[in-house]
Amino acid sequence: MQTWDAITSRRNVRSFSDQPVSSEHLDRVLEAGRRTPSSRNTQPWDFVLITDRGQLRELSEVWVGAAHVAHAAAAIALVIGDDPEQGRRVQFDLGQATMSVMLAAADLGIGTGHAGVADQDLARRVLGLPDGKTCAFLISLGYPADRPLTPLKRPDRRPFDDVVHRGRW
Amino acid sequence: MQTWDAITSRRNVRSFSDQPVSSEHLDRVLEAGRRTPSSRNTQPWDFVLITDRGQLRELSEVWVGAAHVAHAAAAIALVIGDDPEQGRRVQFDLGQATMSVMLAAADLGIGTGHAGVADQDLARRVLGLPDGKTCAFLISLGYPADRPLTPLKRPDRRPFDDVVHRGRW
Repeated sequence: MQTWDAITSRRNVRSFSDQPVSSEHLDRVLEAGRRTPSSRNTQPWDFVLITDRGQLRELSEVWVGAAHVAHAAAAIALVIGDDPEQGRRVQFDLGQATMSVMLAAADLGIGTGHAGVADQDLARRVLGLPDGKTCAFLISLGYPADRPLTPLKRPDRRPFDDVVHRGRW
Repeated sequence: MQTWDAITSRRNVRSFSDQPVSSEHLDRVLEAGRRTPSSRNTQPWDFVLITDRGQLRELSEVWVGAAHVAHAAAAIALVIGDDPEQGRRVQFDLGQATMSVMLAAADLGIGTGHAGVADQDLARRVLGLPDGKTCAFLISLGYPADRPLTPLKRPDRRPFDDVVHRGRW
């Protein structure tokens, strides 16, 4: 897919078809995450790929808004250290990695949905995380149940001329 | 450009040629930023586009690492509110917007470089920001001075099998 089509086709998907995602495509999405730039190239993340239905169902309980994980073809858990000193910087870098993953997925027609993690104990148990590691959030992946990803003509966003200032505010 | 080529070609560019970037292409990059998802669709950003050489030179003084801004074809200032309560969430969203902008630029062969802002007073004066607004950082844009953007075969990142875990940590 052309880059601009991927950028304009990406949308929040929370309902997935039964069609699996090939391991080749999952690896490509993960590779996009791996290549993401980060502050001083610290790469403050690990990615745990989940495709087991039982684990996906368990993970869907980590937050009230994570139900979509249960029915996804796969999920990627973004895992970071629990050093609060690095909070803001790591959040910025996680945002960059998330966007890379979502656009690499959209390029393949794969929808993505985002979920926070409230129950860290549950997430840590399901993912087998060592001490000092936290699951920052989950990204569900799968083919959309309703309609394929196609460019959105009128995304639900502030108007261009409201967001963009030229030269000065 | 194909999405995968844009993802793998993006690199940190800090030295730009004299070639200007068309306003059509700058607007497309800004449109990618505008379309970025954010927490509860809050869109906590404004983008100020700078193409005036005098302003770019002034902005290059806002941080010791911002020298590249002086010679860029353009810069985008990412402006947010100064509510510390929303710090982490906004940083995540800014990371997503930055990646959208960088990949939309790479798709057009445009290099990007990132700069923090230490001297907020200077940034606010040059950008004409109202009270309550902060320049979170700057993205330089321009065609690379050295070589065009092409896919990087061996990016400087941790090995795939170190970053990616399957099923469990």
